[in-house]
Amino acid sequence: ADAEAGKAKAAVCAACHGQNGVAQIPTYPNLAGQNEQYLKLAITAYKNKQRSGGQAAIMQGQAAALSETDIANLAAYYASLPAGGK
Amino acid sequence: ADAEAGKAKAAVCAACHGQNGVAQIPTYPNLAGQNEQYLKLAITAYKNKQRSGGQAAIMQGQAAALSETDIANLAAYYASLPAGGK
Repeated sequence: ADAEAGKAKAAVCAACHGQNGVAQIPTYPNLAGQNEQYLKLAITAYKNKQRSGGQAAIMQGQAAALSETDIANLAAYYASLPAGGK
Repeated sequence: ADAEAGKAKAAVCAACHGQNGVAQIPTYPNLAGQNEQYLKLAITAYKNKQRSGGQAAIMQGQAAALSETDIANLAAYYASLPAGGK
């Protein structure tokens, strides 16, 4: 996976999940330093509409446009950021 | 919410999510320092079987036994832990 490509793709994610992967909105998760494999599973579950409740409808829409490669790159990028931000 | 009560309830969570909220298994999320409100939404979504895919079946089972108070206390506890562990 290509974390640099993930970073480029992450511009839209930052609105809710923060520029550094620390969410600006308390109902959204921080992503910085999260496990890469978990992030792939989570984004894929949103893409497959396997997650509802909470703010999931927003992520269903966002993830629908992502390819498997996009998802892997985004997961690599957010996993690479320091937990808690900086 | 009562983070101390959450800590007591979290013993079973630690098997996958780590003693310090940093997961031992890469397909599971770290919980340390995650946003409290997000954690409540996420656990509630598992309890309501609104999340499938990935390892969600395990969390559906775990969350089924939790009351709203348990969920709030667990969310407060994990949110209180330092992101990235210590």
